Amino acid sequence: MTLKKILIVSGTHGNEINPVWAVNQFKKQLSTIDENIEYKTIIGNPLAYERGCRYIDSDLNRSFNVKKNNLDSKIYEINRANFLVKKFGVNGIEPCQIAIDLHTTTANMGTSIVMYGRRSKDFCLAALLQHKFGLPIYLHEKDEKQTGFLVEAWPCGLVIEIGSVAQNYYDPKIINKFLIIISSLKNEINKLKNNQIKLPKGLTVYVHQGSIDYPRDKNGNISALIHPKRMNKDWNPIKKGDPLFMDVAGNTQIYTGEDTIWPVFIGEVAYKEKNIAMSYTKKEVINFSNQICDDFF
Amino acid sequence: MTLKKILIVSGTHGNEINPVWAVNQFKKQLSTIDENIEYKTIIGNPLAYERGCRYIDSDLNRSFNVKKNNLDSKIYEINRANFLVKKFGVNGIEPCQIAIDLHTTTANMGTSIVMYGRRSKDFCLAALLQHKFGLPIYLHEKDEKQTGFLVEAWPCGLVIEIGSVAQNYYDPKIINKFLIIISSLKNEINKLKNNQIKLPKGLTVYVHQGSIDYPRDKNGNISALIHPKRMNKDWNPIKKGDPLFMDVAGNTQIYTGEDTIWPVFIGEVAYKEKNIAMSYTKKEVINFSNQICDDFF
Repeated sequence: MTLKKILIVSGTHGNEINPVWAVNQFKKQLSTIDENIEYKTIIGNPLAYERGCRYIDSDLNRSFNVKKNNLDSKIYEINRANFLVKKFGVNGIEPCQIAIDLHTTTANMGTSIVMYGRRSKDFCLAALLQHKFGLPIYLHEKDEKQTGFLVEAWPCGLVIEIGSVAQNYYDPKIINKFLIIISSLKNEINKLKNNQIKLPKGLTVYVHQGSIDYPRDKNGNISALIHPKRMNKDWNPIKKGDPLFMDVAGNTQIYTGEDTIWPVFIGEVAYKEKNIAMSYTKKEVINFSNQICDDFF
Repeated sequence: MTLKKILIVSGTHGNEINPVWAVNQFKKQLSTIDENIEYKTIIGNPLAYERGCRYIDSDLNRSFNVKKNNLDSKIYEINRANFLVKKFGVNGIEPCQIAIDLHTTTANMGTSIVMYGRRSKDFCLAALLQHKFGLPIYLHEKDEKQTGFLVEAWPCGLVIEIGSVAQNYYDPKIINKFLIIISSLKNEINKLKNNQIKLPKGLTVYVHQGSIDYPRDKNGNISALIHPKRMNKDWNPIKKGDPLFMDVAGNTQIYTGEDTIWPVFIGEVAYKEKNIAMSYTKKEVINFSNQICDDFF
C-alpha cells in the first residue's frame, strides 16, 4: 500500500474538546508540506461538539458497524458514521489509509494508545508511538458489549487517549500533549519507511478482559464508590484482597479474583452510563518484528 | 432568633455529585444528637441529579427570585425553588434558619465560601468558617445578569464551593473536604454561641466586579483560550499587561485595565453557557466585630 493520507478525527465525543483545539492549532502553526504523507482532519461529531455533549442519539464511537448500518437511519451518529466512511474511508471520496481518533478521559490514565483487535498494521503504528513516547497500549478485543469503534472502519487506526481532564474543560497541557503526538506522526512514519528506526522485539500490551460495575442498591443506585486507595491508580496491578470500593458507611469491598489484573478507566465519567466503574486488563508481551511493518507502505 | 435548623443542600446542580455523597456519608457516619442545632438535608435538583446534568429547564441556583416566581410554572426549577422555600424556608413547614448550599467547580479554586450581598448574619457565618479553615470569601453582589441564588431565600446562607473536580466524577478527596466542613458547622456555631471563639477584626473578601468572556470570532465561536500562564491561577492578582488569552496562532491577549483584579472561576465549564471565561473581583477588608453575631442566636 502506498501510504498517502492520515485521517485525524477529533470531537468524536462532543464534550472532549481539547483534541479539537489541538488540531486547529496544529493546522495553523505546524503544518508543513510533505509529498509522501498528507493529513486530513475532521470533527467526528460536530453537532454534539456544538452542544457540548458526548453524543446526540448514540455513541458515535460505537456506531461503526458500517456493514450493518442502515443507510437511512434516524440516528444522527449512524448517519455520521456512514458519512465519514463514505468520505474518508479507504474506498471513499478522499481515501485515507490510517485513522487516528483523539479522545480524552476524566480517568487518570495519562496518555495511552488504544487498539482494537490484533491487526498487524495497528501493531506497527502502536509500536512506533510506544517507542517514541513510551506510552502504554490498551488492546480492546472480544467484548461483545462494545463494538463498532471508529478506527475499525479503516485498515489501520488507533485511538489516542489523554487525561485526566474534565469534559468541556480546556487545558493547555492536554492540548500540548495532543499537539506533540499529532505533529510527530508524519516524521515517525517516514523514519520507519526509510529504515531509520528499529522497533523493540517485544511489545507489552494491556489486553481487555472485562469491566466491573459499581456496587448498587436494590433500586439500582450506586452504593459504593471507587476506594480512595484505588482512585487514580490506573495501570497499577490489583491483587486478591486489594480494596476496590467503599460504601457510605466506610465498608470496603475487596477484589476476590485469583489473577492479578490491571485496571483502566477507573471512575471514568463517560462510562457510568455503560455501568462501568473500571475496565480491567491482563498484561501480555507480544513478539514483534519490524517485518510486520513491511507491508505498511 | 433561636437557631434550630441548618438546611444542607447538595445537588443544586445535578452534575455536582460529590456533595451529595458527602451528605449521605455524613448522615450515616457522623450525625449526633444536638438539642440546640439540627441539620436538615435535601438534594436541590433531584431530577437533574438523576440525569447527571446541571439542570432540566433552567439553572436552579438562579431560580430563587421567589417573590417573582410564577406559582404554576412549567419550568421544573421554578417549581422546585418554590417547593424548597415552602418546605424549608424560614416560614415553611420545617423552617430552617440557615441554608448551606454545596457546590463543586471544574475551576481550580480550591475550597471557598461564596456570599451574596452584605447581610450581617452571612458575614458572621463566613467569618466563623474563614477563622476555622482559612478559606477565601467571594462576595457576589450587584450583578444584574445573575440573580435568584438559593441561599438568598433564607435569612442567612452561604455557598461552599470545592474544586477542581470534573462534573459527574466522584473524588474521595473532594468528598472528604465537604465532610469536614459540614461536620464542623454545628460545633463552630455552638462555640460562637457560648463565647468560646473570638473572630478576627478584619475580614478579607473578594468582591465581585464583573465577568470576562472568551474572545470570539465573527460566528460567535471561542477564538482564544485562557492563557497557559493564567490557567489554574484563581485568586492570584492580574495586573496591567498580564496575559489573559491565547489564540490558535499563539497570539497573546493581555489585560489592559489599570486596576489590579483577582480572578475566580477561571475556565469554569459550567459558565461557558453564560459567556464567562472568568469572573473578577477586588479585594476589600471589611471591619468586623463579634457584635454583629450577637443577633445570630
